[in-house]
Amino acid sequence: MLTETDKRFLRIAYEEALAGFNEGGCPIGSVLARGDTLVSQGRNQRVQGGDPIAHGEMDALRKAGRQKTYRDTTLYTSLSPCMMCSGTIIQFGIPRVVIAENQTFGGNERFLEGRGVKVIIADDPDCIALMTRFIEEKPELWAEDIAED
Amino acid sequence: MLTETDKRFLRIAYEEALAGFNEGGCPIGSVLARGDTLVSQGRNQRVQGGDPIAHGEMDALRKAGRQKTYRDTTLYTSLSPCMMCSGTIIQFGIPRVVIAENQTFGGNERFLEGRGVKVIIADDPDCIALMTRFIEEKPELWAEDIAED
Repeated sequence: MLTETDKRFLRIAYEEALAGFNEGGCPIGSVLARGDTLVSQGRNQRVQGGDPIAHGEMDALRKAGRQKTYRDTTLYTSLSPCMMCSGTIIQFGIPRVVIAENQTFGGNERFLEGRGVKVIIADDPDCIALMTRFIEEKPELWAEDIAED
Repeated sequence: MLTETDKRFLRIAYEEALAGFNEGGCPIGSVLARGDTLVSQGRNQRVQGGDPIAHGEMDALRKAGRQKTYRDTTLYTSLSPCMMCSGTIIQFGIPRVVIAENQTFGGNERFLEGRGVKVIIADDPDCIALMTRFIEEKPELWAEDIAED
């Protein structure tokens, strides 16, 4: 179940994704929050920063800086986390992940749940539409971002 | 079996780790190579850059920049990869990982092998000694780096 806080942070993740799209990048955004408090927000930096590890989730975690613990946080992401980001969620001990959509990309939800992460899928139509447009317009960039070669 | 090339790149990973130790950081270094060619080298940047996602492996992958493929690469690391770095190895499709040691930290080797990665452990005494000293001297920093709270 999405709370009002969840909806608010998912919207910021979408806005980050949209900003990335408008920059010519991969349109995936993320927010790290501690309860009602936004800790950090970020977006995929492959194009903008030439940085292959800066998926949206990773960029948000980087911008959060050093944290004593993640056990009281929720990670919001506009798109279902890849294996890099899923591994990071497990390693960092993030207990709850709210995913805007997993229709255009997904597959690691069960891996996360199997390691004790609470996973919520929002089926957000704006995020689905944005990723669908991106994948249609820039299939090579998308393939590069998920290392499908 | 370690090749001469493996030994050379493992030594660079160790030198990166040692440089990190001397900077007051977490002493873990990594090299990305394509055959005999070094693509990039890096080291943990938690302390130096305030960056929690920049484990040694991640720093090397970031410094490598955008790559068309990783399927012809080997990742060298002075310490067995955590779940973040292991997930990244899978996502990026890196087929071979040479680990200097997994005595002071480890546990994801089987996860990697189960997903088709060739894993080689070198049992490097210099890397073991460096991590052992670090964990003894800075247990709190080490706990933070692997999110053990």
